[in-house]
Amino acid sequence: MNPITCIDVGGTFIKAGNVVNGKVRHEIKIETGEPGMLTRTLLQIIVELGGEAVGIGMAGLVDADGTISSPPNFPGIESLPLKEILQEELNIPVFVDNDANMAALGEHRYGAGRGIKNLIMLTLGTGVGGGIIINDKIYHGRGYAGEVGHITIDPNGPLCLCGNYGCLESYIGADRITERAREYVRMGVETRLRSYAGKITPEIIEDEAYKGDHVAMDIVAEMAKFLGIAISNYCAILDPERVIIGGGLSKMGDILLSGVKREVARRLYSRKDIDIVFSELGDRAGILGCYEMVIHSI
Amino acid sequence: MNPITCIDVGGTFIKAGNVVNGKVRHEIKIETGEPGMLTRTLLQIIVELGGEAVGIGMAGLVDADGTISSPPNFPGIESLPLKEILQEELNIPVFVDNDANMAALGEHRYGAGRGIKNLIMLTLGTGVGGGIIINDKIYHGRGYAGEVGHITIDPNGPLCLCGNYGCLESYIGADRITERAREYVRMGVETRLRSYAGKITPEIIEDEAYKGDHVAMDIVAEMAKFLGIAISNYCAILDPERVIIGGGLSKMGDILLSGVKREVARRLYSRKDIDIVFSELGDRAGILGCYEMVIHSI
Repeated sequence: MNPITCIDVGGTFIKAGNVVNGKVRHEIKIETGEPGMLTRTLLQIIVELGGEAVGIGMAGLVDADGTISSPPNFPGIESLPLKEILQEELNIPVFVDNDANMAALGEHRYGAGRGIKNLIMLTLGTGVGGGIIINDKIYHGRGYAGEVGHITIDPNGPLCLCGNYGCLESYIGADRITERAREYVRMGVETRLRSYAGKITPEIIEDEAYKGDHVAMDIVAEMAKFLGIAISNYCAILDPERVIIGGGLSKMGDILLSGVKREVARRLYSRKDIDIVFSELGDRAGILGCYEMVIHSI
Repeated sequence: MNPITCIDVGGTFIKAGNVVNGKVRHEIKIETGEPGMLTRTLLQIIVELGGEAVGIGMAGLVDADGTISSPPNFPGIESLPLKEILQEELNIPVFVDNDANMAALGEHRYGAGRGIKNLIMLTLGTGVGGGIIINDKIYHGRGYAGEVGHITIDPNGPLCLCGNYGCLESYIGADRITERAREYVRMGVETRLRSYAGKITPEIIEDEAYKGDHVAMDIVAEMAKFLGIAISNYCAILDPERVIIGGGLSKMGDILLSGVKREVARRLYSRKDIDIVFSELGDRAGILGCYEMVIHSI
């Protein structure tokens, strides 16, 4: 098989790999940088990795023509015909889909979703993405299905970057989580997070939560609650065999997962156990999903 | 073709018909009555209508074996193996599914969903049901998909009959709507609803809203808001080609529909127009859906 260049474009990092026969060879992880530079950055990565076709998973709304619309975490981009631009520039086949769809596809084929016919995936990072596998295939709807990050958790909640109020993402996006920690510090609450000054990251919050810092534990518990509400809604609608949680913030681990499970058990109408697990592939879920998309498209 | 007995069991009314070649002949509508009498009532209807097979759409959770679990609007029923009981008693084929799934199937085949590949249906009545058609088939998940009535609208909202807090049904179920009207009357607010004393029905509220009664208009507007939030969540996840609203309360008409459309437009992440329409089949949606289920099962 020929090498395929697979790129997962998140709000903070771009992860890419050269994939042959489902194995990731050369791998790259760089900061996403300025939205205005995105196309140029992608071209550089594609040239460096040298695959014979390209698959891209991109945060935000991606239509069937590979055009991106107003991704909330890429201010300034309103409509970007990414597939068309890259194909013209490179003269090789390019396929573009939503990043969480790609992560769902990667996990379904190679990771925590192997052998599962109907599953839903959530990706927790700068934004909150969602992907749906129904009958072993990505379910796109008219192109924009699975956007669990923008379901309303509380109609009177905070303004989200998407323009709606009270979206899941407005409660548990990475920036919101670190901002919440800084609020506690500013309020003068006793917490070890204070020692990190302005440099609190989700990883630090996770780490301190494990070590028993009450503020960090509160933040993770609150995140678990909102995530649990969203997952119970997602499951009331789709009743999947499995829910997979991936993305950078999923590293929050068991404290997060047990809180999510409690909230879902409390809320889910069917009262049936839902199998909720973390991603097995981590950063590679999106990359391997892009690989699957490309090999089934060319 | 042989006649099929099709029965739509709601929290307040049972609607049933003898259906031949997709045409409803003899039709019955009776009050649902005591949950403990349900099986006996259904047997009487089946004997009266005399079909050679039976299809039943029932409010609540229905598993693949035709067993009903804890339907919120049938207190006292915990687990009822309806298919098994009726088949043993009658010795003819019986098929049971969720009532909103049946309404979705009826509309998809004969009504407002003809030619639509992916659609979602909401049924507004005593409870709020949901059904999903994906690729021209009912999507069941593990058996309990589409339960939009029990997605959380507000995590701190009122207790729902299902045990969760802030479910859509706890805001817009028929009892909640009429209770809201009685609250206004008790508070002494100026409204023509006062003249109906304790006998306010959703139809009266609709009628007075059309005539310009401000309290009735407020109640419909509030219902539209909650319904709009739920539909925007449903659509963020499934991005269907069409949304169909059916059930008794859908008779609230254009005041309700325009309010729903405004709320969805305000909240939906994709900012794509969603085609939201009322049921074309009314009371017959569920009956005709049961017919479709039976003829494709035997």
